[in-house]
Amino acid sequence: MLLAVLDLVGIFVFGITGALVGVRKNLDVFGIQVLALVTGLGGGFLRDVLIGVTPPAALEDWRYLAVPVAAGLLTFFLHPRIGRVERLVNIFDAAGLALFCVTGALKAIDYGLSPLSAALLGTISGIGGGVVRDVLSGRVPVVLRSEIYATPAFLGAGIVVLASALGYHALWVPISAAVVCFLIRLVAIRRGWNAPLPRNP
Amino acid sequence: MLLAVLDLVGIFVFGITGALVGVRKNLDVFGIQVLALVTGLGGGFLRDVLIGVTPPAALEDWRYLAVPVAAGLLTFFLHPRIGRVERLVNIFDAAGLALFCVTGALKAIDYGLSPLSAALLGTISGIGGGVVRDVLSGRVPVVLRSEIYATPAFLGAGIVVLASALGYHALWVPISAAVVCFLIRLVAIRRGWNAPLPRNP
Amino acid sequence: MLLAVLDLVGIFVFGITGALVGVRKNLDVFGIQVLALVTGLGGGFLRDVLIGVTPPAALEDWRYLAVPVAAGLLTFFLHPRIGRVERLVNIFDAAGLALFCVTGALKAIDYGLSPLSAALLGTISGIGGGVVRDVLSGRVPVVLRSEIYATPAFLGAGIVVLASALGYHALWVPISAAVVCFLIRLVAIRRGWNAPLPRNP
Repeated sequence: MLLAVLDLVGIFVFGITGALVGVRKNLDVFGIQVLALVTGLGGGFLRDVLIGVTPPAALEDWRYLAVPVAAGLLTFFLHPRIGRVERLVNIFDAAGLALFCVTGALKAIDYGLSPLSAALLGTISGIGGGVVRDVLSGRVPVVLRSEIYATPAFLGAGIVVLASALGYHALWVPISAAVVCFLIRLVAIRRGWNAPLPRNP
Repeated sequence: MLLAVLDLVGIFVFGITGALVGVRKNLDVFGIQVLALVTGLGGGFLRDVLIGVTPPAALEDWRYLAVPVAAGLLTFFLHPRIGRVERLVNIFDAAGLALFCVTGALKAIDYGLSPLSAALLGTISGIGGGVVRDVLSGRVPVVLRSEIYATPAFLGAGIVVLASALGYHALWVPISAAVVCFLIRLVAIRRGWNAPLPRNP
Repeated sequence: MLLAVLDLVGIFVFGITGALVGVRKNLDVFGIQVLALVTGLGGGFLRDVLIGVTPPAALEDWRYLAVPVAAGLLTFFLHPRIGRVERLVNIFDAAGLALFCVTGALKAIDYGLSPLSAALLGTISGIGGGVVRDVLSGRVPVVLRSEIYATPAFLGAGIVVLASALGYHALWVPISAAVVCFLIRLVAIRRGWNAPLPRNP
């Protein structure tokens, strides 16, 4: 139940980032919907196919379609000036990353994967949607650009996996894990944290 | 049987679009073959992996390879002037979209998926080949550009699913569904139909 | 056992190519790690999902993560001048292609796939990592560029499949198949072999 709610919220915020990138790229209302759908559902598809859950949950449940469509339409009508789009994309993307790394890890645990696999699947499903969005719209994927991105996702997924291995299954575990991932990512965006660049010998 | 024939025709026309894009991008005969193969087979791979049919049909049957290779060679030797390539890409792509949305939906029904899932899988397998082609060759995916694309595919798949739910399994159902999708897409290309763009507040 | 060793060596050299492209694109140490990971593991993920082995081996075994991370860190600290990066990418990529086409075919045979499927899966897993690397970093995929690439991979995979069908399971079969693929690819790079281009009528 909690898993489904967090999943749908994650799909919603990722859907918004897809739609905002579509607005930025001057796509029409259909292109924006498609980008909202693939961004919202991409990470979960990847997760489900890798776990071996076919067809993916998102294809069997109408809510998984209604949510990104709603995100796309809402963004289409209410989006801000183009100049402020990029900042919003980053913030919603951080929220989606935080929610998906946690729900991805939880689902992987439910299907009996080992702790390491579960943490990695959480990370992959957190990163997946953004990669699909950026590749389709011709941007350098955010996970490759100069900021802390995969690390907080792995940390969030890791907290969930560790807590589960220690027998904690309370509601506050996934929620605090998502908050930790979200805050680290947000601080990284705000401060413009950069990791070391390669030396040129 | 009908499913296999429609599938192979769809692979052939998608293979032609891949090869034409390769000609346009000035690839050599091998690059053109690869692009014909991934465009022809991409949508079906995606469909089979999402349904859970592994290995995908295209890997088990030599005809699924011979057809896109033939499409690639034919295009390599008989392609038109570069200036007229784009129009041909669009027309063959519309045919592939129409055929794949229908065969994708039929295959999903055969594997016992729910009507909603089957319609979505049809749409995804219709769109998939073109997305792979455009991403690999560095074009903005056609499904994101300013025209009616995913909608006719969903409509075609929906007709097949609805007819099947109502008990109609005649040959003319998938054929008329494909024709409907193809014609809508063709009119959209000819008229340059555009959906509303986002307002810039 | 041999399969695992060849697989890990293939992941290592593909990881190096990913990291080198990251250095070239001026990514920071995290971006370079991500690119090393997806390049090293991409082909194997694709292979395992298509065979239906979920979750993929790489998610269940820590060595499959340690190896590309090591490749990424090594490259980050020891990479050559930018000007010489591209040549190294090509050579390591040829080695990865040769190893993956062979291990992919062997794994497909182990899982009972038909000879044709096994040869194709070998080719796909050889090509996969490089395609993911190039698409994510905004390069034209090497498999589409003007040189012999998919053909030696198919040849290497084919030798393994043929030998297995004839009852040869000795160690030297996969090793000589990989050497054949590697040498052909290397000669193609050195000589700048180009296949015929389409005529412009």
